[in-house]
Amino acid sequence: MITSPSNPKIKFIRKLRTKKFRDENQLFYIEGPRIISEAIDAKWNFAQVFYSQELITDPYSKKLLGKLLSLNTECFEVDKQVFESFSIKDGPKGLAAVLFQKTFELNYFAESKGLWVGLDRIQDPGNLGSILRTLDAVGGSGIILIDQCTDPFDIAAVRGSMGALFSLKIIKTTRNNFLQFLDKKNITIIGTSDKSDKDYQAIQYKNDMILMMGSEREGLSVSLIEGCDKLVRIPMVGKSDSLNLAVATSICLYEIFNQNRKK
Amino acid sequence: MITSPSNPKIKFIRKLRTKKFRDENQLFYIEGPRIISEAIDAKWNFAQVFYSQELITDPYSKKLLGKLLSLNTECFEVDKQVFESFSIKDGPKGLAAVLFQKTFELNYFAESKGLWVGLDRIQDPGNLGSILRTLDAVGGSGIILIDQCTDPFDIAAVRGSMGALFSLKIIKTTRNNFLQFLDKKNITIIGTSDKSDKDYQAIQYKNDMILMMGSEREGLSVSLIEGCDKLVRIPMVGKSDSLNLAVATSICLYEIFNQNRKK
Repeated sequence: MITSPSNPKIKFIRKLRTKKFRDENQLFYIEGPRIISEAIDAKWNFAQVFYSQELITDPYSKKLLGKLLSLNTECFEVDKQVFESFSIKDGPKGLAAVLFQKTFELNYFAESKGLWVGLDRIQDPGNLGSILRTLDAVGGSGIILIDQCTDPFDIAAVRGSMGALFSLKIIKTTRNNFLQFLDKKNITIIGTSDKSDKDYQAIQYKNDMILMMGSEREGLSVSLIEGCDKLVRIPMVGKSDSLNLAVATSICLYEIFNQNRKK
Repeated sequence: MITSPSNPKIKFIRKLRTKKFRDENQLFYIEGPRIISEAIDAKWNFAQVFYSQELITDPYSKKLLGKLLSLNTECFEVDKQVFESFSIKDGPKGLAAVLFQKTFELNYFAESKGLWVGLDRIQDPGNLGSILRTLDAVGGSGIILIDQCTDPFDIAAVRGSMGALFSLKIIKTTRNNFLQFLDKKNITIIGTSDKSDKDYQAIQYKNDMILMMGSEREGLSVSLIEGCDKLVRIPMVGKSDSLNLAVATSICLYEIFNQNRKK
């Protein structure tokens, strides 16, 4: 049993809070029975499991620990104080894991269909998590992160996605690669822009398409706007001229979903 | 000029980060030219203004400082280090203010019409901010915070609302008072619940109504569900059985808005 918070393995987990360290190791941290159970169900690869018997009190978590111990994964028992030293929860339930990151190249997209969201330099991990959660709710396929976006393996993104991270595909690419790639493919791309005069409800959406959303501060970059087949806007009548990014994305996703589920 | 971060006035501002201190003093903190400008336009009452000439570089902020100095408000110049000691921004622009809180009693609602959102024990200030932002975008009137909700004057709520806080009315009440009050009024209340089998798009919404949303973890409490005229659900086809609260609220608000703007 690990009893020191300065044990190298424990220091390692805490360092996974920074994007740089996550990227270097291609790993990320998750905590709590619900999300761990979802990662198992979705067959994501576990690198390590950490647990504290003292903190595991409910029958569900006990059963889950049994499942984790039977995975072909390194499992470490730690004491309560050690667990609390790396926990990200208010009331830690004694189960945490380090997972291997899983992202795809743009080529994956060519083999796949369905509803995708392209995100251009978005910055807020909470927004990314909420977008994943809504995309899962409408039966979408995945997201394409273009250029420097916030990290889908950030704690706030993982938490915000409520497990949707595990059921959706994540593609990382650059703007140039994305535009070159699309040039050769027959896929509808619809972007949002407050400069468009087309109401988002005035067009027909197919279920195979990419919805393009720009960064919180700047919206879509000019070259990506030019790459869109159509641009739409969400009408607003208040003082503000924009919505929260996760909200705007979700409103468009539900419009696409609503049109298609009624067919 | 204030040159010490331990000056009592500066300590006071920093303490406004806690809800308890904000409540006791009925004050809150805002920072940055955009939000300060919106607070002036919406005629909210300023208690104090803090500025650092060294950090004010753009012409817009300089002009705004002139406007602030001409308000009938205490203004304090502070040096750069002092400003940075209480700033909540990455790149502080040298303008901050302490404002008087403004909330209304339930009676205010009786005099008002339009679209309201009732929020039952919601916990996340970012969600509250996003809900305010969307409600403003659809031309709503205000929110009713029921029982122990997160604080609309929390930094994350104020920031997330992007100024919508200043144009909407905020009512605070208890569940019992709310239900008793509604009993006597003729107002449509529509709640959301994953237990409802009524699709949120299957009913007609008036523009004068209250949309009821429950807490992130527990949804609407039983007595509030019973107080609703109708209950609807947002359909989902993914693994998860819920959406982020701000997203779910916004999807309903846009359905109400979309139905009414087409009439």
